[in-house]
Amino acid sequence: MDLKSLIRDIPDFPKPGILFRDITTLLRDPEGLRYTIDFFAQQCIEKELIPDYIVGMESRGFIFGSPLAYKLGSGFIPARKKGKLPGAVHSIEYELEYGTDSLEVHQDALHPGSRVLIVDDLIATGGTAGATAKLVQKIGCDLVGFGFIIELRDLQGRKHLPDVPIISLIEY
Amino acid sequence: MDLKSLIRDIPDFPKPGILFRDITTLLRDPEGLRYTIDFFAQQCIEKELIPDYIVGMESRGFIFGSPLAYKLGSGFIPARKKGKLPGAVHSIEYELEYGTDSLEVHQDALHPGSRVLIVDDLIATGGTAGATAKLVQKIGCDLVGFGFIIELRDLQGRKHLPDVPIISLIEY
Repeated sequence: MDLKSLIRDIPDFPKPGILFRDITTLLRDPEGLRYTIDFFAQQCIEKELIPDYIVGMESRGFIFGSPLAYKLGSGFIPARKKGKLPGAVHSIEYELEYGTDSLEVHQDALHPGSRVLIVDDLIATGGTAGATAKLVQKIGCDLVGFGFIIELRDLQGRKHLPDVPIISLIEY
Repeated sequence: MDLKSLIRDIPDFPKPGILFRDITTLLRDPEGLRYTIDFFAQQCIEKELIPDYIVGMESRGFIFGSPLAYKLGSGFIPARKKGKLPGAVHSIEYELEYGTDSLEVHQDALHPGSRVLIVDDLIATGGTAGATAKLVQKIGCDLVGFGFIIELRDLQGRKHLPDVPIISLIEY
């Protein structure tokens, strides 16, 4: 299936000059959604990246991370924006173009040695994925890899990630 | 499987006096996640609630709505907070305890006659689910039902929803 044909390009979002790759048109398509998760899981199996836990980043990472965890038989751990998780958290701050943001996971969600796959919809500059990697490695987890639906190759986000396998289903 | 045993109670979150029902402990458990989605899908099949589209609300609704759509062979439509969706949107404003909030779906995501199941992690007073129902009904969709992991019965959220079938997997 030509997954790229299900991605919609929206110019000037969220601001002028940015071409936004919109995954909602893929999600809306039952065969597209089904194929995306099955293909994603197949890639994980072929690369022997079956994790104990999938960590998905708020909030588009939830949309792909949760069904992938379901399919692979892994647990799902949401990495959320500051103040959203009800329990005690591990937190990491990271830089944005302007200012900083932070991501949190529950302290009792991950443990040293847990095999973790980090999943998000898209990797651009790699800031969010890199910060999430630091967070799970700080806890002592075994980061087995990353999975993205879309990779924007020109932005070289891979350079900001640890040297583990990276799955990306669609490249621009 | 005793799903309720996988839900963690956290007192005084997000504010004093509220007992928060935390679903992250269920998500983290591979068997719990698997069983939840399979049981959810089975309930939909038994009640003949197989929709064209599942609409899941940002952001915990994404975590359950997307794998349920995958399992049922439906499309998934995210209902997002204001300004998050890149395309033209239908929008609805609804009242919170203090102030208002709004939810949006892409204008070309749903059409008159589309069979829609609305999915969220939890129904409390029914404000968010009721607003989402108004939004999809305003578009002319056929709202076939609601699905929640948790229902807080005391808060009588059902009273604010249209008269369609409601699935809730865990009740308090």
